[in-house]
Amino acid sequence: MLSKAKIKLINQLSQKKYRQQTGLFIAEGHKTVEDMMGYFTTEYLYYTSDYSGNKKANESCEVTYDELKKISRLETPQNVLAVFKMPVYEGVAIDPEELTLALDGIQDAGNMGTIIRIADWFGINNIFASKNTVDIYNPKVVQATMGALSRVRVHYVDLVQELNRVDAPIYVTALDGDNINKCSLTKNGVIVMGNEGNGVSQEVMALANKKLLIPSYPPERPTSESLNVSVATAIVVSMFRSQI
Amino acid sequence: MLSKAKIKLINQLSQKKYRQQTGLFIAEGHKTVEDMMGYFTTEYLYYTSDYSGNKKANESCEVTYDELKKISRLETPQNVLAVFKMPVYEGVAIDPEELTLALDGIQDAGNMGTIIRIADWFGINNIFASKNTVDIYNPKVVQATMGALSRVRVHYVDLVQELNRVDAPIYVTALDGDNINKCSLTKNGVIVMGNEGNGVSQEVMALANKKLLIPSYPPERPTSESLNVSVATAIVVSMFRSQI
Repeated sequence: MLSKAKIKLINQLSQKKYRQQTGLFIAEGHKTVEDMMGYFTTEYLYYTSDYSGNKKANESCEVTYDELKKISRLETPQNVLAVFKMPVYEGVAIDPEELTLALDGIQDAGNMGTIIRIADWFGINNIFASKNTVDIYNPKVVQATMGALSRVRVHYVDLVQELNRVDAPIYVTALDGDNINKCSLTKNGVIVMGNEGNGVSQEVMALANKKLLIPSYPPERPTSESLNVSVATAIVVSMFRSQI
Repeated sequence: MLSKAKIKLINQLSQKKYRQQTGLFIAEGHKTVEDMMGYFTTEYLYYTSDYSGNKKANESCEVTYDELKKISRLETPQNVLAVFKMPVYEGVAIDPEELTLALDGIQDAGNMGTIIRIADWFGINNIFASKNTVDIYNPKVVQATMGALSRVRVHYVDLVQELNRVDAPIYVTALDGDNINKCSLTKNGVIVMGNEGNGVSQEVMALANKKLLIPSYPPERPTSESLNVSVATAIVVSMFRSQI
């Protein structure tokens, strides 16, 4: 049985303010929840009678579908909802030997979740995000990561400061960049992806060592169009990994 | 002033049944609407006083924001909504000389819209979709295409039949495929992308000439994860275009 206080607490976790106060966030669905249970401390677990997965949590409780609906953020609630403790990553800096993603003001939760999945697939372990980037513990981001949030660490930092002190090549995508298909790409470095509407900020652009262009086709066709930022991330990261 | 009958008609266009009966569909927002006006017949156009774009339509009318809210499918209505006539493309078959996309049961409107944008960027003019693929005139798909729907033609067909009679290589992505980064890809052919949960159907898989794998990284790391279908489409199409 779910208490009113618990329902209120869980619903408050849709707001960043309460997530930061409590250090808690929610995730839903069998695959996502079980995947994350292996990596994060499970504070509360609520499941309906048809849930057959892992039930190990500090507090776990079978609930009715109607109760689950009261705490779920999904249009069609699945059979389990977990409240996890946010992990604390201390003193992480960009590793110049690794390939790293930096995000400069990504706003859309779906894009953020997709980018985390891309990082997971391509073995990028750390993402550095500017402080105005959407919060990864936003329930929509968590769901869009499909569990990849467990394996990819996202750090919110002063991006200009971090990029200033890293000793590795910094790449951005830009319409006046060099054709990525013809560039020799390094094994390490930082790939910066920018905001959906405005791209990479001027301060960050000024720190870039190399501008890359994903060419449209045919190359001579003028286009006012753009690629979605998560799609562009996928193409760029895939190109870096393909050259190894 | 919007009549009750018009409000009802426009709201019905959220349903495929009414779109098919009337041959009409809606699009919203300045950029998307203006982009599409150049390609499709604009049956009705409703705009608020701050809309400064093209107003040429069979019937166009200034409305209040409250009126626009009654017909909009967006959480925050923009300043224009258009009702377009669906184009009719007759007797189109897969051109064996072109690079073509085929979609086998894509269900998610956001994925479909993103795939159409990818096709537009990479100069793929025709997409052939199985009949159980989400309808491109679904308002969520239209919005996600950001206007690209104007330039990319989508044909709903019996996919097995179409693929059976095309004289060009047919590519699918599969976990037991060959590393796409090491394959020599043809300039023409059909790239088939499958349903979000189930991938490409068995009948279509049986027609494939070549299976391609987008390798995860590091390659030896076992992963139970997957890439989103629109992300996979972007990587594959980009690879095909990069080899030209």
